Amino acid sequence: MSTHHVIATYVIETSLPLQHAAEVLAGEQSTGTFVRVQRESDDLRARFAAQVESLQEIPLTGASPLPGAVGDPAARRRAVLRLRFPLDNFGPSLPNLLAAVAGNLFEIKELSAVRLIDLDLPPAFAERYRGPRFGVAGTRRLMGASDGAMIGTIIKPSIGLAPTELAEVVGELAEAGIDFIKDDELQGNGPSSPLSARVAAVMPVLHRYADRTGRMPMYAFNITDDISRLEANHDLVVAAGGTCVMACVNLVGLAGLEFLSAHTAVPIHGHRTMFGAIGRSEQVGIGFRAWQKIARLSGADHLHTNGISNKFYETDDEVLDSIAAVREPLLGIAPTVPVLSSGQWGGLAHATYRAVGTTDLLVLAGGGIHGHPDGAAAGVSSMRDAWASAARGETAQDAVDRSAALRRATEVFGPVRV
Amino acid sequence: MSTHHVIATYVIETSLPLQHAAEVLAGEQSTGTFVRVQRESDDLRARFAAQVESLQEIPLTGASPLPGAVGDPAARRRAVLRLRFPLDNFGPSLPNLLAAVAGNLFEIKELSAVRLIDLDLPPAFAERYRGPRFGVAGTRRLMGASDGAMIGTIIKPSIGLAPTELAEVVGELAEAGIDFIKDDELQGNGPSSPLSARVAAVMPVLHRYADRTGRMPMYAFNITDDISRLEANHDLVVAAGGTCVMACVNLVGLAGLEFLSAHTAVPIHGHRTMFGAIGRSEQVGIGFRAWQKIARLSGADHLHTNGISNKFYETDDEVLDSIAAVREPLLGIAPTVPVLSSGQWGGLAHATYRAVGTTDLLVLAGGGIHGHPDGAAAGVSSMRDAWASAARGETAQDAVDRSAALRRATEVFGPVRV
Repeated sequence: MSTHHVIATYVIETSLPLQHAAEVLAGEQSTGTFVRVQRESDDLRARFAAQVESLQEIPLTGASPLPGAVGDPAARRRAVLRLRFPLDNFGPSLPNLLAAVAGNLFEIKELSAVRLIDLDLPPAFAERYRGPRFGVAGTRRLMGASDGAMIGTIIKPSIGLAPTELAEVVGELAEAGIDFIKDDELQGNGPSSPLSARVAAVMPVLHRYADRTGRMPMYAFNITDDISRLEANHDLVVAAGGTCVMACVNLVGLAGLEFLSAHTAVPIHGHRTMFGAIGRSEQVGIGFRAWQKIARLSGADHLHTNGISNKFYETDDEVLDSIAAVREPLLGIAPTVPVLSSGQWGGLAHATYRAVGTTDLLVLAGGGIHGHPDGAAAGVSSMRDAWASAARGETAQDAVDRSAALRRATEVFGPVRV
Repeated sequence: MSTHHVIATYVIETSLPLQHAAEVLAGEQSTGTFVRVQRESDDLRARFAAQVESLQEIPLTGASPLPGAVGDPAARRRAVLRLRFPLDNFGPSLPNLLAAVAGNLFEIKELSAVRLIDLDLPPAFAERYRGPRFGVAGTRRLMGASDGAMIGTIIKPSIGLAPTELAEVVGELAEAGIDFIKDDELQGNGPSSPLSARVAAVMPVLHRYADRTGRMPMYAFNITDDISRLEANHDLVVAAGGTCVMACVNLVGLAGLEFLSAHTAVPIHGHRTMFGAIGRSEQVGIGFRAWQKIARLSGADHLHTNGISNKFYETDDEVLDSIAAVREPLLGIAPTVPVLSSGQWGGLAHATYRAVGTTDLLVLAGGGIHGHPDGAAAGVSSMRDAWASAARGETAQDAVDRSAALRRATEVFGPVRV
């Protein structure tokens, strides 16, 4: 990899000749326009122009062209385009990088689709951005879970519980043997259950449990708020002995995540809410592979990927690619924990493990734990039994045969996925 | 308007019965799911559930359904949905508001389109967020332009000019009588022309011009960078006597803009780069009307809307709606200056003025000024003549008849728009 360039990979679609459209994009995002202006010397272009590294045609998908795209829709062609940007154009600054690789280009009318799907970044970015401070190892240490899949859950109902009720729920979940509990992303710092009240209610419960058992579940308090409040919110959690803060990455912004990361004394649980706004369209926006690299460099210790068989729009293949992406090495920074959530239960463990080959995962189950017919403790057992069985190389049927908790779970959630 | 609720307006599309899909969305974004969980009391739902305020079917547009949408595509119906959220769910925190109105909902598979197009916010938001500190009046005062359209330009080539060359360009533009000059959004803080070097090169030129003429053009230095660097970048500009800083709103994040706003001593020029990633699809994301309200509350003194006949994807109607949106009163905060750019020249003044009815605009022309056959000074004159004529209620032909500079511009840019 070049140490002086960034490679940005796009899917584009256009009614223009593909090479021409690629050059429009490269021009718009670097030295300017096709019309030469005064002082735009050959030397300047040689040093600063983005270059077409490769351009490979791929089949159309059938999706309709973006609004405002010019040209005959029937003449559209689709391609994977790799553009090479000189690092000197922006330096190793993530916000300034994004102006080049993900800025005005989404508005270009010569393109009927334009989606940033990957970024290859030179080492200078890891010199400036240190990435996760805790990652997999720090998270395992703080939650006292040295091996196996980390099992967690989300507080439900999402919002509306009084702090006293929240404390009861947390107490039950701790007794159930859970590793991790998180606030819902809808639970921020509203007047009916402000962060300070949640911390005051939850932490004594966790401390009492830890005093008795020697192990404290990690609770991710959602500290998402104005940037100027992030440090105080974080400090409130840490002062009370909390071991994790949650930030909604797209709501504080990737730059806000990086700001928090410079200050944090505990792992940052990175929620991806609002990702669909930039990631769901197949015609425009930023794909998860590209987005997660920025989020990891910016310090996300945990990052939501969804899980297989989830409630949302992504296919299992897409989810598995997201999990694989988060686990790929990135410029030597510490590994981020992929967070599998939505529709998760013990019966998905074997299929997931077979595809991802690791238990360095945080698996969150809402219904899969709270909705177990024998209660939350049995729900946690069913998840642990299933993941331990998968990691031992057994079949899903072996796990059902051995684990009463998993067997009972199948009565509610249906057959295990094999 | 209710002081205790937020109304979010969406365009949705679904193969489910419309009312059912609307309720899925309301449930997912407030008290949780359709399955009741323990402690989800009737009282809790009454206080915290989002409610369907109105649902009005509209015609399908022909755009293809979002990936992962379930149901028969042929059964799709489209509607404008207004949801009412209790303010207590998030309090007057913009990041936490966004979790509710623009969070996971974009990933819901029951929806084949879901786009947030407007927000009605209660006054509590303006008590917490003060909006633009300078706005129209402060900007006019600082640039010494008490009336008429404010005429500006963008440095080209976008990147690659050495600071000494930049100083030359700025000197020429100042002599041409321009009101406003800005860095390109691609010009951040890279090694070949760091912000400090640009400030050191540009400000003496502007000071010399101001000493001689009593008037200093406003230069918007692009200070976009990591959040922790924004204050220092801003201070560097202000210490040198600069009167404006530019922030790429989506790159520092809306929350980053708000952070900068709390500190700024000069107007913030809000660039909308990357907006296309969330705004261009007609099937998913956040429309400009909704986005600009958050940006204005967060402190954008100037906000890019594009102009008519622009190079990008938006139609004139869309651009004019964006300009109107930015000019609409918002909870009593100071008015933000709409920034018209891309493909602008004097020949668009009459058509624009007739549609918007104001000169409280910052009109940026690149080619329309640099590319004038008689040079930049004639380019600025052509823009000023045209806008003054429009504001006097003359026809575009009157302006061509009276202004030699505008007449010459038509030789390059074609006939004026009437």
